[in-house]
Amino acid sequence: MSGAPLFGKVVVFGVGLIGGSFALALKAAGQAGEIVGFGRTLGSLNQALQLGILDRVGFNVGQEVSNADLVLIATPVGKTAEIMARIAPCLGLQTVVTDGGSTKEDVVAAARMHFGERIGQFVPAHPIAGAENSGALAARADLYRDKQVVLTPLPENGPQRVARVRSAWECCGGVVRELTAAEHDRIFAAVSHLPHLLSFALVHELARRDNRDLLFGFAASGFRDFTRIAASHPEMWRDICLANRAALIDELDRYRAQLDQLRDALQRGDGTVLETTFDVARAARREWAERKRQE
Amino acid sequence: MSGAPLFGKVVVFGVGLIGGSFALALKAAGQAGEIVGFGRTLGSLNQALQLGILDRVGFNVGQEVSNADLVLIATPVGKTAEIMARIAPCLGLQTVVTDGGSTKEDVVAAARMHFGERIGQFVPAHPIAGAENSGALAARADLYRDKQVVLTPLPENGPQRVARVRSAWECCGGVVRELTAAEHDRIFAAVSHLPHLLSFALVHELARRDNRDLLFGFAASGFRDFTRIAASHPEMWRDICLANRAALIDELDRYRAQLDQLRDALQRGDGTVLETTFDVARAARREWAERKRQE
Repeated sequence: MSGAPLFGKVVVFGVGLIGGSFALALKAAGQAGEIVGFGRTLGSLNQALQLGILDRVGFNVGQEVSNADLVLIATPVGKTAEIMARIAPCLGLQTVVTDGGSTKEDVVAAARMHFGERIGQFVPAHPIAGAENSGALAARADLYRDKQVVLTPLPENGPQRVARVRSAWECCGGVVRELTAAEHDRIFAAVSHLPHLLSFALVHELARRDNRDLLFGFAASGFRDFTRIAASHPEMWRDICLANRAALIDELDRYRAQLDQLRDALQRGDGTVLETTFDVARAARREWAERKRQE
Repeated sequence: MSGAPLFGKVVVFGVGLIGGSFALALKAAGQAGEIVGFGRTLGSLNQALQLGILDRVGFNVGQEVSNADLVLIATPVGKTAEIMARIAPCLGLQTVVTDGGSTKEDVVAAARMHFGERIGQFVPAHPIAGAENSGALAARADLYRDKQVVLTPLPENGPQRVARVRSAWECCGGVVRELTAAEHDRIFAAVSHLPHLLSFALVHELARRDNRDLLFGFAASGFRDFTRIAASHPEMWRDICLANRAALIDELDRYRAQLDQLRDALQRGDGTVLETTFDVARAARREWAERKRQE
Protein backbone atom coordinates (compact mmCIF):
# COMPACT_ATOMS: atom_id res chain seq x y z
CA MET A 1 0.00 0.00 0.00
CA SER A 2 1.57 3.33 -1.04
CA GLY A 3 0.51 6.90 -0.38
CA ALA A 4 -1.41 8.47 2.49
CA PRO A 5 -4.23 6.42 4.06
CA LEU A 6 -7.78 7.27 2.98
CA PHE A 7 -8.62 8.21 6.57
CA GLY A 8 -6.01 10.02 8.62
CA LYS A 9 -7.82 9.81 11.92
CA VAL A 10 -10.54 7.32 12.77
CA VAL A 11 -12.57 7.42 15.98
CA VAL A 12 -14.46 4.29 17.05
CA PHE A 13 -17.17 4.26 19.70
CA GLY A 14 -17.48 0.71 21.01
CA VAL A 15 -14.52 -1.61 20.60
CA GLY A 16 -16.36 -4.93 20.51
CA LEU A 17 -16.78 -7.35 17.62
CA ILE A 18 -18.10 -4.76 15.14
CA GLY A 19 -15.97 -1.74 16.05
CA GLY A 20 -12.86 -3.77 16.78
CA SER A 21 -13.04 -5.66 13.49
CA PHE A 22 -13.62 -2.40 11.58
CA ALA A 23 -10.50 -0.92 13.17
CA LEU A 24 -8.39 -4.01 12.53
CA ALA A 25 -9.56 -4.22 8.91
CA LEU A 26 -8.87 -0.55 8.12
CA LYS A 27 -5.41 -0.88 9.65
CA ALA A 28 -4.69 -4.09 7.77
CA ALA A 29 -5.67 -2.28 4.57
CA GLY A 30 -3.33 0.58 5.47
CA GLN A 31 -6.21 3.05 5.23
CA ALA A 32 -6.28 4.42 8.79
CA GLY A 33 -3.59 6.79 10.04
CA GLU A 34 -4.56 6.64 13.69
CA ILE A 35 -7.37 4.86 15.48
CA VAL A 36 -8.77 6.32 18.71
CA GLY A 37 -11.34 4.41 20.74
CA PHE A 38 -14.06 5.15 23.26
CA GLY A 39 -15.88 2.46 25.21
CA ARG A 40 -18.02 1.71 28.20
CA THR A 41 -15.31 0.29 30.42
CA LEU A 42 -11.61 0.91 30.82
CA GLY A 43 -11.16 -2.85 30.88
CA SER A 44 -12.44 -3.35 27.37
CA LEU A 45 -10.47 -0.33 26.11
CA ASN A 46 -7.24 -1.64 27.59
CA GLN A 47 -7.94 -5.02 26.07
CA ALA A 48 -8.46 -3.35 22.68
CA LEU A 49 -5.14 -1.52 23.07
CA GLN A 50 -3.34 -4.74 23.91
CA LEU A 51 -4.95 -6.53 20.93
CA GLY A 52 -3.68 -3.78 18.60
CA ILE A 53 -7.21 -2.66 17.75
CA LEU A 54 -6.58 0.91 18.95
CA ASP A 55 -3.60 3.22 18.79
CA ARG A 56 -4.95 5.30 21.63
CA VAL A 57 -7.83 5.49 24.11
CA GLY A 58 -9.79 8.73 23.83
CA PHE A 59 -10.79 10.85 26.84
CA ASN A 60 -12.20 14.06 25.39
CA VAL A 61 -14.95 13.29 22.89
CA GLY A 62 -15.27 16.84 21.54
CA GLN A 63 -11.56 17.18 20.92
CA GLU A 64 -11.18 13.77 19.27
CA VAL A 65 -14.06 14.05 16.81
CA SER A 66 -13.36 17.67 15.82
CA ASN A 67 -10.42 16.63 13.66
CA ALA A 68 -11.49 13.07 12.82
CA ASP A 69 -11.90 12.00 9.22
CA LEU A 70 -14.14 9.04 10.01
CA VAL A 71 -16.24 8.13 13.02
CA LEU A 72 -17.82 4.72 13.56
CA ILE A 73 -20.58 4.29 16.13
CA ALA A 74 -20.49 0.62 17.08
CA THR A 75 -22.05 0.61 20.52
CA PRO A 76 -25.19 -1.43 21.31
CA VAL A 77 -28.18 0.06 19.45
CA GLY A 78 -29.63 1.37 22.69
CA LYS A 79 -26.60 3.63 23.26
CA THR A 80 -26.43 5.10 19.77
CA ALA A 81 -28.54 8.19 20.45
CA GLU A 82 -26.43 9.13 23.45
CA ILE A 83 -23.22 9.01 21.40
CA MET A 84 -24.82 11.06 18.62
CA ALA A 85 -25.87 13.73 21.10
CA ARG A 86 -22.33 13.93 22.43
CA ILE A 87 -20.53 14.13 19.09
CA ALA A 88 -22.98 16.25 17.08
CA PRO A 89 -21.87 19.68 18.34
CA CYS A 90 -18.17 18.88 17.83
CA LEU A 91 -17.96 17.29 14.38
CA GLY A 92 -15.35 18.74 12.05
CA LEU A 93 -16.56 19.85 8.63
CA GLN A 94 -14.62 17.05 6.96
CA THR A 95 -15.82 14.32 9.33
CA VAL A 96 -18.08 11.55 8.05
CA VAL A 97 -19.89 9.35 10.54
CA THR A 98 -21.22 5.84 9.99
CA ASP A 99 -22.56 3.13 12.27
CA GLY A 100 -22.82 -0.63 12.55
CA GLY A 101 -26.35 -0.95 13.88
CA SER A 102 -28.54 -3.90 12.92
CA THR A 103 -31.63 -1.69 12.58
CA LYS A 104 -31.81 1.49 10.56
CA GLU A 105 -35.10 3.41 10.85
CA ASP A 106 -34.58 4.02 14.55
CA VAL A 107 -30.95 5.03 13.98
CA VAL A 108 -31.97 7.48 11.26
CA ALA A 109 -34.66 8.97 13.49
CA ALA A 110 -32.16 9.43 16.32
CA ALA A 111 -29.62 10.89 13.90
CA ARG A 112 -32.11 13.42 12.56
CA MET A 113 -32.87 14.49 16.11
CA HIS A 114 -29.29 14.79 17.31
CA PHE A 115 -27.29 15.80 14.25
CA GLY A 116 -29.82 18.45 13.19
CA GLU A 117 -28.34 20.49 10.35
CA ARG A 118 -25.31 18.21 10.22
CA ILE A 119 -27.38 15.14 9.36
CA GLY A 120 -25.70 15.05 5.94
CA GLN A 121 -22.48 13.94 7.65
CA PHE A 122 -24.05 10.70 8.87
CA VAL A 123 -24.23 7.79 6.43
CA PRO A 124 -26.02 4.84 8.12
CA ALA A 125 -24.62 1.34 7.61
CA HIS A 126 -25.26 -2.24 8.65
CA PRO A 127 -22.50 -4.79 8.08
CA ILE A 128 -24.04 -8.27 7.75
CA ALA A 129 -21.45 -10.12 9.74
CA GLY A 130 -23.15 -11.57 12.77
CA ALA A 131 -21.40 -13.93 15.09
CA GLU A 132 -22.57 -15.38 18.36
CA ASN A 133 -19.43 -14.13 20.01
CA SER A 134 -18.99 -10.54 21.07
CA GLY A 135 -16.38 -8.29 22.63
CA ALA A 136 -12.94 -7.08 21.57
CA LEU A 137 -11.47 -10.58 21.86
CA ALA A 138 -13.80 -11.76 19.08
CA ALA A 139 -12.73 -8.96 16.69
CA ARG A 140 -10.78 -9.94 13.59
CA ALA A 141 -9.46 -8.11 10.53
CA ASP A 142 -11.31 -10.40 8.11
CA LEU A 143 -14.77 -10.31 9.73
CA TYR A 144 -16.20 -8.24 6.85
CA ARG A 145 -14.37 -9.93 3.98
CA ASP A 146 -16.86 -10.75 1.22
CA LYS A 147 -19.73 -9.95 3.59
CA GLN A 148 -22.54 -7.65 2.55
CA VAL A 149 -22.63 -4.16 4.06
CA VAL A 150 -25.92 -2.32 3.62
CA LEU A 151 -25.82 1.48 3.42
CA THR A 152 -29.10 3.34 3.83
CA PRO A 153 -28.03 6.80 2.61
CA LEU A 154 -30.06 9.90 3.38
CA PRO A 155 -31.04 12.52 0.79
CA GLU A 156 -28.85 15.00 2.69
CA ASN A 157 -25.68 12.91 2.41
CA GLY A 158 -24.74 13.86 -1.11
CA PRO A 159 -22.70 11.55 -3.34
CA GLN A 160 -19.22 12.43 -1.98
CA ARG A 161 -19.95 11.46 1.61
CA VAL A 162 -21.74 8.27 0.56
CA ALA A 163 -18.74 7.38 -1.61
CA ARG A 164 -16.37 8.03 1.26
CA VAL A 165 -18.25 5.81 3.70
CA ARG A 166 -18.68 3.18 0.99
CA SER A 167 -14.91 3.16 0.46
CA ALA A 168 -14.31 2.69 4.19
CA TRP A 169 -16.48 -0.45 4.28
CA GLU A 170 -14.97 -1.68 1.03
CA CYS A 171 -11.49 -1.28 2.52
CA CYS A 172 -12.71 -3.66 5.23
CA GLY A 173 -13.51 -6.20 2.53
CA GLY A 174 -17.27 -5.63 2.50
CA VAL A 175 -19.57 -5.86 -0.52
CA VAL A 176 -21.64 -2.67 -0.28
CA ARG A 177 -25.34 -2.58 -1.19
CA GLU A 178 -27.81 0.32 -0.82
CA LEU A 179 -31.37 0.18 0.49
CA THR A 180 -33.73 2.64 2.12
CA ALA A 181 -33.88 2.35 5.90
CA ALA A 182 -37.48 1.11 5.69
CA GLU A 183 -36.62 -1.57 3.13
CA HIS A 184 -33.67 -2.62 5.26
CA ASP A 185 -35.74 -3.03 8.40
CA ARG A 186 -38.47 -5.06 6.68
CA ILE A 187 -35.97 -7.40 5.07
CA PHE A 188 -33.94 -7.99 8.22
CA ALA A 189 -37.02 -8.51 10.37
CA ALA A 190 -37.78 -11.45 8.08
CA VAL A 191 -34.39 -13.05 7.48
CA SER A 192 -32.54 -12.22 10.71
CA HIS A 193 -34.54 -10.77 13.60
CA LEU A 194 -37.39 -13.29 13.45
CA PRO A 195 -35.09 -16.35 13.22
CA HIS A 196 -33.18 -15.10 16.26
CA LEU A 197 -36.41 -14.63 18.23
CA LEU A 198 -37.60 -18.12 17.22
CA SER A 199 -34.33 -19.75 18.20
CA PHE A 200 -34.18 -17.99 21.58
CA ALA A 201 -37.82 -19.00 22.18
CA LEU A 202 -37.18 -22.70 21.60
CA VAL A 203 -34.19 -22.93 23.92
CA HIS A 204 -35.96 -20.86 26.58
CA GLU A 205 -39.01 -23.13 26.40
CA LEU A 206 -36.92 -26.28 26.92
CA ALA A 207 -34.56 -24.72 29.48
CA ARG A 208 -37.31 -24.08 31.99
CA ARG A 209 -38.56 -27.66 32.12
CA ASP A 210 -37.86 -30.08 34.95
CA ASN A 211 -36.50 -32.67 32.49
CA ARG A 212 -34.23 -30.20 30.68
CA ASP A 213 -31.10 -32.31 31.16
CA LEU A 214 -32.78 -35.36 29.63
CA LEU A 215 -34.05 -33.30 26.69
CA PHE A 216 -30.75 -31.56 26.00
CA GLY A 217 -28.96 -34.91 26.38
CA PHE A 218 -30.66 -36.19 23.22
CA ALA A 219 -30.37 -32.97 21.21
CA ALA A 220 -28.23 -33.53 18.12
CA SER A 221 -26.94 -31.72 15.05
CA GLY A 222 -30.30 -30.38 13.88
CA PHE A 223 -30.85 -28.78 17.27
CA ARG A 224 -27.26 -27.51 17.31
CA ASP A 225 -27.65 -25.57 14.08
CA PHE A 226 -31.20 -24.37 14.75
CA THR A 227 -30.14 -22.96 18.12
CA ARG A 228 -26.69 -21.60 17.33
CA ILE A 229 -28.12 -18.07 17.21
CA ALA A 230 -29.77 -18.58 20.61
CA ALA A 231 -26.27 -18.04 22.02
CA SER A 232 -26.32 -14.46 20.67
CA HIS A 233 -25.89 -11.42 22.87
CA PRO A 234 -29.10 -10.87 24.93
CA GLU A 235 -28.75 -7.11 25.37
CA MET A 236 -27.94 -6.54 21.72
CA TRP A 237 -30.92 -8.62 20.61
CA ARG A 238 -33.25 -6.98 23.10
CA ASP A 239 -32.31 -3.64 21.54
CA ILE A 240 -32.70 -4.91 17.98
CA CYS A 241 -36.12 -6.42 18.72
CA LEU A 242 -37.36 -3.25 20.37
CA ALA A 243 -35.90 -0.97 17.71
CA ASN A 244 -37.54 -2.92 14.89
CA ARG A 245 -40.57 -4.11 16.74
CA ALA A 246 -43.27 -2.98 14.28
CA ALA A 247 -41.74 -4.97 11.42
CA LEU A 248 -40.83 -7.84 13.74
CA ILE A 249 -44.36 -8.15 15.12
CA ASP A 250 -45.67 -8.21 11.55
CA GLU A 251 -43.25 -10.99 10.62
CA LEU A 252 -44.05 -12.87 13.81
CA ASP A 253 -47.76 -12.72 13.01
CA ARG A 254 -47.23 -14.08 9.52
CA TYR A 255 -45.13 -16.85 10.98
CA ARG A 256 -47.72 -17.69 13.61
CA ALA A 257 -50.29 -17.99 10.82
CA GLN A 258 -47.96 -20.52 9.14
CA LEU A 259 -47.74 -22.48 12.38
CA ASP A 260 -51.52 -22.40 12.73
CA GLN A 261 -51.86 -23.94 9.28
CA LEU A 262 -49.31 -26.64 10.07
CA ARG A 263 -51.05 -27.38 13.36
CA ASP A 264 -54.37 -27.77 11.54
CA ALA A 265 -52.73 -30.14 9.06
CA LEU A 266 -51.25 -32.19 11.91
CA GLN A 267 -54.60 -32.30 13.69
CA ARG A 268 -56.36 -33.48 10.53
CA GLY A 269 -53.56 -35.90 9.70
CA ASP A 270 -53.20 -34.11 6.36
CA GLY A 271 -49.90 -35.40 5.01
CA THR A 272 -50.30 -33.59 1.71
CA VAL A 273 -50.18 -30.12 3.27
CA LEU A 274 -47.17 -31.11 5.35
CA GLU A 275 -45.25 -32.63 2.46
CA THR A 276 -46.03 -29.72 0.12
CA THR A 277 -44.87 -27.21 2.73
CA PHE A 278 -41.66 -29.13 3.39
CA ASP A 279 -41.05 -29.60 -0.31
CA VAL A 280 -41.38 -25.88 -1.13
CA ALA A 281 -39.09 -25.08 1.80
CA ARG A 282 -36.46 -27.59 0.78
CA ALA A 283 -36.41 -26.41 -2.82
CA ALA A 284 -36.06 -22.76 -1.75
CA ARG A 285 -33.37 -23.58 0.84
CA ARG A 286 -31.35 -25.58 -1.69
CA GLU A 287 -31.65 -22.86 -4.33
CA TRP A 288 -30.48 -20.30 -1.77
CA ALA A 289 -27.50 -22.43 -0.72
CA GLU A 290 -26.55 -22.98 -4.37
CA ARG A 291 -26.66 -19.25 -5.11
CA LYS A 292 -24.59 -18.47 -2.02
CA ARG A 293 -21.98 -20.99 -3.10
CA GLN A 294 -21.68 -19.33 -6.48
CA GLU A 295 -21.29 -15.82 -5.08
CA MET B 1 -10.64 -58.63 13.36
CA SER B 2 -10.35 -62.39 13.94
CA GLY B 3 -12.96 -65.14 14.25
CA ALA B 4 -16.44 -65.38 12.75
CA PRO B 5 -18.48 -62.22 12.33
CA LEU B 6 -21.18 -61.57 14.94
CA PHE B 7 -23.82 -61.69 12.22
CA GLY B 8 -23.42 -64.23 9.44
CA LYS B 9 -26.22 -62.93 7.26
CA VAL B 10 -27.68 -59.43 7.45
CA VAL B 11 -30.76 -58.32 5.49
CA VAL B 12 -31.38 -54.60 5.01
CA PHE B 13 -34.68 -53.13 3.85
CA GLY B 14 -34.01 -49.67 2.44
CA VAL B 15 -30.49 -48.89 1.24
CA GLY B 16 -30.49 -45.11 1.78
CA LEU B 17 -28.52 -43.07 4.31
CA ILE B 18 -29.57 -45.10 7.37
CA GLY B 19 -29.58 -48.62 5.92
CA GLY B 20 -26.57 -48.04 3.69
CA SER B 21 -24.47 -46.61 6.51
CA PHE B 22 -25.48 -49.49 8.81
CA ALA B 23 -24.35 -52.00 6.18
CA LEU B 24 -21.07 -50.19 5.50
CA ALA B 25 -20.32 -49.86 9.23
CA LEU B 26 -20.99 -53.54 10.02
CA LYS B 27 -18.78 -54.56 7.09
CA ALA B 28 -16.02 -52.18 8.10
CA ALA B 29 -16.15 -53.71 11.60
CA GLY B 30 -15.91 -57.18 10.09
CA GLN B 31 -19.13 -58.22 11.80
CA ALA B 32 -21.35 -59.04 8.81
CA GLY B 33 -20.75 -62.19 6.78
CA GLU B 34 -23.06 -61.28 3.92
CA ILE B 35 -25.34 -58.29 3.37
CA VAL B 36 -28.47 -58.67 1.27
CA GLY B 37 -30.59 -55.64 0.38
CA PHE B 38 -34.16 -54.90 -0.60
CA GLY B 39 -35.30 -51.49 -1.84
CA ARG B 40 -38.01 -49.60 -3.64
CA THR B 41 -36.23 -49.27 -6.97
CA LEU B 42 -33.73 -51.37 -8.89
CA GLY B 43 -31.79 -48.17 -9.55
CA SER B 44 -31.06 -47.53 -5.88
CA LEU B 45 -30.25 -51.21 -5.30
CA ASN B 46 -27.79 -51.26 -8.19
CA GLN B 47 -26.22 -48.07 -6.88
CA ALA B 48 -25.86 -49.71 -3.45
CA LEU B 49 -24.19 -52.73 -5.06
CA GLN B 50 -21.75 -50.50 -6.92
CA LEU B 51 -20.95 -48.54 -3.76
CA GLY B 52 -20.10 -51.78 -1.95
CA ILE B 53 -22.99 -51.38 0.48
CA LEU B 54 -24.54 -54.73 -0.49
CA ASP B 55 -23.12 -58.08 -1.41
CA ARG B 56 -26.30 -59.08 -3.12
CA VAL B 57 -29.76 -57.78 -4.06
CA GLY B 58 -32.55 -59.88 -2.60
CA PHE B 59 -35.56 -61.04 -4.62
CA ASN B 60 -37.42 -63.47 -2.37
CA VAL B 61 -38.16 -61.86 0.99
CA GLY B 62 -39.33 -65.05 2.69
CA GLN B 63 -36.27 -67.01 1.67
CA GLU B 64 -33.79 -64.29 2.62
CA VAL B 65 -35.11 -63.56 6.10
CA SER B 66 -35.69 -67.21 7.06
CA ASN B 67 -31.96 -67.77 7.59
CA ALA B 68 -30.93 -64.19 8.40
CA ASP B 69 -29.19 -63.42 11.70
CA LEU B 70 -30.05 -59.73 11.66
CA VAL B 71 -32.66 -57.70 9.79
CA LEU B 72 -32.70 -53.89 9.64
CA ILE B 73 -35.83 -52.07 8.53
CA ALA B 74 -34.62 -48.69 7.24
CA THR B 75 -37.36 -47.66 4.86
CA PRO B 76 -39.31 -44.41 5.32
CA VAL B 77 -41.50 -44.67 8.45
CA GLY B 78 -44.64 -44.88 6.30
CA LYS B 79 -43.45 -48.16 4.72
CA THR B 80 -42.39 -49.91 7.93
CA ALA B 81 -45.68 -51.72 8.58
CA GLU B 82 -45.74 -53.17 5.07
CA ILE B 83 -42.23 -54.63 5.49
CA MET B 84 -43.16 -56.07 8.89
CA ALA B 85 -46.20 -57.78 7.42
CA ARG B 86 -44.06 -59.34 4.70
CA ILE B 87 -41.25 -60.62 6.92
CA ALA B 88 -43.22 -61.68 10.01
CA PRO B 89 -44.35 -65.12 8.75
CA CYS B 90 -40.87 -66.04 7.50
CA LEU B 91 -38.49 -65.05 10.31
CA GLY B 92 -36.03 -67.72 11.41
CA LEU B 93 -35.96 -68.57 15.12
CA GLN B 94 -32.49 -67.03 15.46
CA THR B 95 -33.34 -63.82 13.57
CA VAL B 96 -33.38 -60.50 15.42
CA VAL B 97 -34.97 -57.48 13.74
CA THR B 98 -34.29 -53.82 14.44
CA ASP B 99 -35.20 -50.59 12.70
CA GLY B 100 -33.94 -47.05 12.20
CA GLY B 101 -37.17 -45.14 12.51
CA SER B 102 -37.24 -41.63 14.01
CA THR B 103 -40.47 -42.33 15.91
CA LYS B 104 -41.08 -45.32 18.12
CA GLU B 105 -44.61 -45.62 19.50
CA ASP B 106 -46.10 -46.01 16.04
CA VAL B 107 -43.40 -48.52 15.06
CA VAL B 108 -44.03 -50.57 18.19
CA ALA B 109 -47.79 -50.54 17.56
CA ALA B 110 -47.25 -51.73 13.99
CA ALA B 111 -44.79 -54.36 15.18
CA ARG B 112 -47.24 -55.72 17.73
CA MET B 113 -49.87 -56.00 15.02
CA HIS B 114 -47.69 -57.68 12.41
CA PHE B 115 -45.17 -59.75 14.37
CA GLY B 116 -47.83 -61.16 16.70
CA GLU B 117 -46.30 -63.93 18.80
CA ARG B 118 -42.87 -63.18 17.35
CA ILE B 119 -42.85 -59.64 18.71
CA GLY B 120 -39.96 -60.60 21.00
CA GLN B 121 -37.69 -60.82 17.95
CA PHE B 122 -38.10 -57.10 17.20
CA VAL B 123 -35.93 -54.64 19.15
CA PRO B 124 -36.83 -51.06 18.11
CA ALA B 125 -34.02 -48.56 17.57
CA HIS B 126 -33.46 -44.96 16.55
CA PRO B 127 -29.93 -43.92 15.57
CA ILE B 128 -29.53 -40.17 16.17
CA ALA B 129 -27.58 -39.40 13.06
CA GLY B 130 -29.64 -37.08 10.96
CA ALA B 131 -28.28 -35.43 7.88
CA GLU B 132 -30.00 -33.28 5.33
CA ASN B 133 -28.77 -35.61 2.60
CA SER B 134 -30.44 -38.90 1.84
CA GLY B 135 -30.02 -41.88 -0.45
CA ALA B 136 -27.35 -44.54 -0.90
CA LEU B 137 -24.81 -42.00 -2.16
CA ALA B 138 -24.93 -40.24 1.22
CA ALA B 139 -24.22 -43.44 3.17
CA ARG B 140 -20.90 -43.73 4.97
CA ALA B 141 -19.29 -46.24 7.31
CA ASP B 142 -18.73 -43.65 10.04
CA LEU B 143 -22.21 -42.09 10.13
CA TYR B 144 -22.96 -43.63 13.55
CA ARG B 145 -19.54 -43.21 15.12
CA ASP B 146 -19.93 -41.66 18.59
CA LYS B 147 -23.58 -40.92 17.82
CA GLN B 148 -26.33 -41.90 20.22
CA VAL B 149 -28.53 -44.83 19.28
CA VAL B 150 -31.73 -45.15 21.32
CA LEU B 151 -33.17 -48.62 21.85
CA THR B 152 -36.74 -48.85 23.13
CA PRO B 153 -36.82 -52.53 24.12
CA LEU B 154 -40.08 -54.39 24.66
CA PRO B 155 -40.84 -56.60 27.68
CA GLU B 156 -41.00 -59.56 25.28
CA ASN B 157 -37.47 -59.06 23.91
CA GLY B 158 -35.58 -60.68 26.75
CA PRO B 159 -32.02 -59.68 27.60
CA GLN B 160 -30.25 -61.81 24.95
CA ARG B 161 -31.98 -60.28 21.97
CA VAL B 162 -31.58 -56.75 23.34
CA ALA B 163 -27.88 -57.45 23.87
CA ARG B 164 -27.53 -58.77 20.33
CA VAL B 165 -29.16 -55.71 18.75
CA ARG B 166 -27.20 -53.46 21.08
CA SER B 167 -23.97 -55.08 19.89
CA ALA B 168 -24.94 -54.53 16.25
CA TRP B 169 -25.36 -50.79 16.79
CA GLU B 170 -22.22 -50.66 18.91
CA CYS B 171 -20.27 -52.34 16.09
CA CYS B 172 -21.42 -49.41 13.94
CA GLY B 173 -19.79 -47.04 16.44
CA GLY B 174 -23.00 -45.98 18.18
CA VAL B 175 -23.39 -45.09 21.86
CA VAL B 176 -26.47 -47.06 22.88
CA ARG B 177 -29.05 -45.66 25.32
CA GLU B 178 -32.39 -47.16 26.39
CA LEU B 179 -35.74 -45.38 26.78
CA THR B 180 -39.36 -46.43 26.61
CA ALA B 181 -41.02 -45.71 23.28
CA ALA B 182 -43.24 -43.08 24.91
CA GLU B 183 -40.29 -41.30 26.53
CA HIS B 184 -38.45 -41.39 23.23
CA ASP B 185 -41.29 -39.82 21.29
CA ARG B 186 -41.83 -37.01 23.81
CA ILE B 187 -38.15 -36.15 23.90
CA PHE B 188 -37.68 -36.13 20.14
CA ALA B 189 -40.84 -34.15 19.52
CA ALA B 190 -39.19 -31.41 21.59
CA VAL B 191 -35.56 -31.48 20.45
CA SER B 192 -35.89 -32.67 16.86
CA HIS B 193 -39.34 -32.82 15.31
CA LEU B 194 -40.47 -29.36 16.44
CA PRO B 195 -37.24 -27.61 15.32
CA HIS B 196 -37.60 -29.22 11.89
CA LEU B 197 -41.22 -28.08 11.62
CA LEU B 198 -40.24 -24.54 12.68
CA SER B 199 -37.40 -24.36 10.18
CA PHE B 200 -39.52 -25.65 7.29
CA ALA B 201 -42.23 -23.13 8.25
CA LEU B 202 -39.89 -20.13 8.10
CA VAL B 203 -38.45 -20.96 4.69
CA HIS B 204 -41.90 -21.79 3.31
CA GLU B 205 -43.27 -18.48 4.58
CA LEU B 206 -40.52 -16.48 2.86
CA ALA B 207 -40.43 -18.60 -0.30
CA ARG B 208 -43.99 -17.74 -1.25
CA ARG B 209 -43.51 -13.97 -1.19
CA ASP B 210 -43.16 -11.79 -4.26
CA ASN B 211 -39.91 -10.34 -2.95
CA ARG B 212 -38.37 -13.69 -2.06
CA ASP B 213 -35.21 -13.08 -4.11
CA LEU B 214 -34.58 -9.79 -2.33
CA LEU B 215 -35.17 -11.39 1.06
CA PHE B 216 -32.99 -14.44 0.42
CA GLY B 217 -30.33 -12.15 -1.06
CA PHE B 218 -29.71 -10.63 2.38
CA ALA B 219 -29.97 -13.84 4.38
CA ALA B 220 -26.68 -14.56 6.13
CA SER B 221 -25.06 -17.06 8.48
CA GLY B 222 -27.78 -16.96 11.17
CA PHE B 223 -30.39 -17.81 8.54
CA ARG B 224 -28.11 -20.47 7.06
CA ASP B 225 -27.82 -22.38 10.32
CA PHE B 226 -31.43 -21.90 11.41
CA THR B 227 -32.68 -23.26 8.07
CA ARG B 228 -30.19 -26.05 7.39
CA ILE B 229 -32.75 -28.62 8.51
CA ALA B 230 -35.35 -27.10 6.16
CA ALA B 231 -33.43 -28.92 3.41
CA SER B 232 -34.38 -32.26 5.01
CA HIS B 233 -36.32 -34.94 3.18
CA PRO B 234 -40.00 -33.87 2.80
CA GLU B 235 -41.51 -37.36 2.64
CA MET B 236 -39.50 -38.59 5.62
CA TRP B 237 -40.49 -35.56 7.69
CA ARG B 238 -44.13 -35.79 6.68
CA ASP B 239 -44.12 -39.36 7.99
CA ILE B 240 -42.32 -38.42 11.21
CA CYS B 241 -44.69 -35.53 11.91
CA LEU B 242 -47.76 -37.68 11.30
CA ALA B 243 -46.40 -40.64 13.27
CA ASN B 244 -45.63 -38.48 16.31
CA ARG B 245 -48.34 -35.91 15.86
CA ALA B 246 -49.87 -36.03 19.35
CA ALA B 247 -46.55 -35.20 21.03
CA LEU B 248 -45.62 -32.76 18.25
CA ILE B 249 -48.90 -30.84 18.56
CA ASP B 250 -48.34 -30.60 22.30
CA GLU B 251 -44.82 -29.23 21.78
CA LEU B 252 -46.06 -26.86 19.10
CA ASP B 253 -48.72 -25.51 21.46
CA ARG B 254 -46.18 -24.87 24.21
CA TYR B 255 -43.97 -23.13 21.68
CA ARG B 256 -46.82 -20.99 20.38
CA ALA B 257 -47.51 -19.92 23.97
CA GLN B 258 -43.85 -18.81 24.18
CA LEU B 259 -44.28 -16.80 20.98
CA ASP B 260 -47.45 -15.24 22.35
CA GLN B 261 -45.54 -14.06 25.42
CA LEU B 262 -42.74 -12.63 23.31
CA ARG B 263 -45.26 -10.90 21.05
CA ASP B 264 -46.90 -9.31 24.10
CA ALA B 265 -43.51 -8.14 25.33
CA LEU B 266 -42.72 -6.62 21.93
CA GLN B 267 -46.11 -4.91 21.81
CA ARG B 268 -45.62 -3.45 25.29
CA GLY B 269 -41.99 -2.55 24.54
CA ASP B 270 -41.01 -4.65 27.54
CA GLY B 271 -37.25 -5.03 27.18
CA THR B 272 -36.87 -6.85 30.48
CA VAL B 273 -38.94 -9.85 29.39
CA LEU B 274 -37.06 -10.02 26.11
CA GLU B 275 -33.62 -9.78 27.68
CA THR B 276 -34.45 -12.30 30.43
CA THR B 277 -35.75 -14.79 27.84
CA PHE B 278 -32.69 -14.35 25.65
CA ASP B 279 -30.38 -14.59 28.63
CA VAL B 280 -31.86 -17.87 29.89
CA ALA B 281 -31.68 -19.26 26.34
CA ARG B 282 -28.07 -18.23 25.84
CA ALA B 283 -26.95 -19.69 29.16
CA ALA B 284 -28.70 -23.00 28.42
CA ARG B 285 -27.37 -23.14 24.85
CA ARG B 286 -23.81 -22.46 26.00
CA GLU B 287 -24.04 -25.05 28.76
CA TRP B 288 -25.33 -27.59 26.24
CA ALA B 289 -22.52 -26.85 23.78
CA GLU B 290 -19.94 -27.13 26.55
CA ARG B 291 -21.29 -30.50 27.67
CA LYS B 292 -21.33 -31.76 24.07
CA ARG B 293 -17.72 -30.73 23.64
CA GLN B 294 -16.70 -32.70 26.72
CA GLU B 295 -18.50 -35.88 25.64
